[in-house]
Amino acid sequence: MSHFTDRLLEAVRSKGGPVCVGIDPVYERLPESLRSPGDDDVLEVRVDAIFAFVQKIIEVVAEHVPAVKFQAACFERYGPDGLGVYHALTAEAREAGLIVIGDVKRGDIGVTAEHYAAATLLDAAAGDDDAAAPDAVTINSYFGVDGVKPFTDVAAEHDKGVFALVRTSNPGGDAIQNLPLTDGRTVAQAVAQLMAQIGSDPRYIGASGYSLLGAVVGATKPGDAAALRRLMPQQMFLVPGFGAQGAGADDVRACFKADGTGALITASRSITYAFESRPEVDWAQSIEDATIEMKRQIGGIVG
Amino acid sequence: MSHFTDRLLEAVRSKGGPVCVGIDPVYERLPESLRSPGDDDVLEVRVDAIFAFVQKIIEVVAEHVPAVKFQAACFERYGPDGLGVYHALTAEAREAGLIVIGDVKRGDIGVTAEHYAAATLLDAAAGDDDAAAPDAVTINSYFGVDGVKPFTDVAAEHDKGVFALVRTSNPGGDAIQNLPLTDGRTVAQAVAQLMAQIGSDPRYIGASGYSLLGAVVGATKPGDAAALRRLMPQQMFLVPGFGAQGAGADDVRACFKADGTGALITASRSITYAFESRPEVDWAQSIEDATIEMKRQIGGIVG
Repeated sequence: MSHFTDRLLEAVRSKGGPVCVGIDPVYERLPESLRSPGDDDVLEVRVDAIFAFVQKIIEVVAEHVPAVKFQAACFERYGPDGLGVYHALTAEAREAGLIVIGDVKRGDIGVTAEHYAAATLLDAAAGDDDAAAPDAVTINSYFGVDGVKPFTDVAAEHDKGVFALVRTSNPGGDAIQNLPLTDGRTVAQAVAQLMAQIGSDPRYIGASGYSLLGAVVGATKPGDAAALRRLMPQQMFLVPGFGAQGAGADDVRACFKADGTGALITASRSITYAFESRPEVDWAQSIEDATIEMKRQIGGIVG
Repeated sequence: MSHFTDRLLEAVRSKGGPVCVGIDPVYERLPESLRSPGDDDVLEVRVDAIFAFVQKIIEVVAEHVPAVKFQAACFERYGPDGLGVYHALTAEAREAGLIVIGDVKRGDIGVTAEHYAAATLLDAAAGDDDAAAPDAVTINSYFGVDGVKPFTDVAAEHDKGVFALVRTSNPGGDAIQNLPLTDGRTVAQAVAQLMAQIGSDPRYIGASGYSLLGAVVGATKPGDAAALRRLMPQQMFLVPGFGAQGAGADDVRACFKADGTGALITASRSITYAFESRPEVDWAQSIEDATIEMKRQIGGIVG
C-alpha cells in the first residue's frame, strides 16, 4: 500500500470530490422495512438491521465518494456483537474500494495509547493489519505528544492515517478551544501547531507532501478555519458538521488549500437519514441522491 | 442504589483507605504460569489468560481496597472477545464488593456522546444497567459541556459516576494543559472550572456534597493539585500516576481536602506487576503485598 494521504488524494481524484459519508446508524431511525417492532428488544435483531442498513449504504455510495466514516459509538453501544459488525462492515467498505475512517476518538498515554492504536488501527481480533481494520482513525489530542505518537507510529508502519481533534464542531467546544492564550493564540491554534510539529516527522510525510497525521476541524467554525489552515500546512483536514449540524459549502471553503486539496468534508445524518423527508422515494435512492447533491455542492467550491 | 460518591466514600471508610488498583493486563507480562508460549498466537488463549489473571487479582485485592479501575484499551485490543471479558470481569469485581471504574476515556458530542454513555456506563449488550457495567467511567473533556452532559445525565439516572480528564499524568500533557491564558489561568484550570460548573447541577450532588462528575488529576503534577483542589470543591479526584509513573504519597497530598476525603489514588503497574521483581514469591501474594503497602503509604497522609 502507499501512504495514506496519497491513497486518499488519488481516491478523491478518481471519485471526483473530497466528500466522505459519515455512517452513524441508530436502530430507531432505520427505514421501517428494516426494523422489526415486534422483537427488537433482542440485541441481535437490532444489530442485524444495522448491518443490513449500512451494507446497502456502502453499495450505493461506493461509486460516488472516496471515503466513509464509521461512528464507532453507534456500534459499541451494542457491545461485542456491535463491535463485530463494525469490523465486518469496515471490511465490506474497503472491499468496495472505499477508504474507511474509524471515528473512535480514542486518547490515552504511552503504553495505553499503544493498546488503543492496536485496537483501532489494526484488526484487534486478527492481531494483524488486515481488511477488517480502517484506513485511519480519529484521536483526541488533549494528552499532547505522548498521546499522539503511539498512534502515528503504528500508522506509519502500516500506511494508515490519524486525524487529531483540533477544533470540534459543537457549540460547547468554544468554552475550551477558543480560550485566548497570553501569546495571542487560542487553545485550538496551540493544539494545531503542536499537531503540525508532531506530524512533520519525515517518516510521516507522503509523496503529496501531506502528513499521515491530519486534523479534525469542524465545518461549523468557518471563522477559525483559515488560521488553522495556515498553521497546519501539511495536515489533511477531516471536516465534520456539514449538513445536519448546519454548515454549508461556503463554510468549508477555508479548509482547502489554493490547489483544492487538503480537506475531506463529511456529512452524516443529512445523507444517511435523507429518506426521512422523502417518504415517497426508496430509502436507498434518497441516500444516493443526497450523496450526489452534496458532492455537487462541494464540487462548486473546489472546482 | 445510592449516589455514586456516597457509595465510594462508604467503601473507602469500610476498606480503610482511598486506594484503587488499576488493572492494565498485558499478555506478555503475565506470570509465566498463566502463559502458553506454544499456542499464544491464538486470540482465545491470550484472552483466557488475561481473564484468569484479573480474576485472581480481584480475589486478592477485594478485601483491601474500595475500588478497581479497568483499562479498557487492554481489553479492546482483543476485539469483541476482549470486550466480552471486560464486561465479565466488571461483573465479577462488582460481585466481590468492589466499585469498578471503567477507564475508557471516551469523548464525543451530543447524540454520539449519548451512544458512548450507553456503551460504557450501561451494559451495552444487555441494553440495561446491570451488573456487567462499571460504576463510573473516565471521559475526555475537550468538547466542553455538550460532550460531558450526555455522560453525566445517564450517570445521574443510574447512580453512576464520571471522571473528566483535567490534568493528565504524562509529561506531554503540559504542552497543552499548562498553557497560560490571558486571564491568568492555565488551560487545565479553565477546564477544571468548567467541570466544577457542569458538576454543580443539584441533580448531580450526593448526600456527601460531592458531585457525580469528578476529575482526573495526575499524581505526577503535585504543583498543580492544590489550585485544582480549590477550583473543584465538589469534585472527587481520580488520581493516576502513583507508583510506576513516579509519584509517591507526598505528591498526592494536595488532592485531598482537609477532612481526608476527595481523592481516590490509583496505582496500576506497580501493583499488578509487583511479582516481576519478586520471582521467589507467589505472584498473587506479591500483588496482595503491594496493595497493602500502597494502602499503608496513602494511610500515612490521610490519617
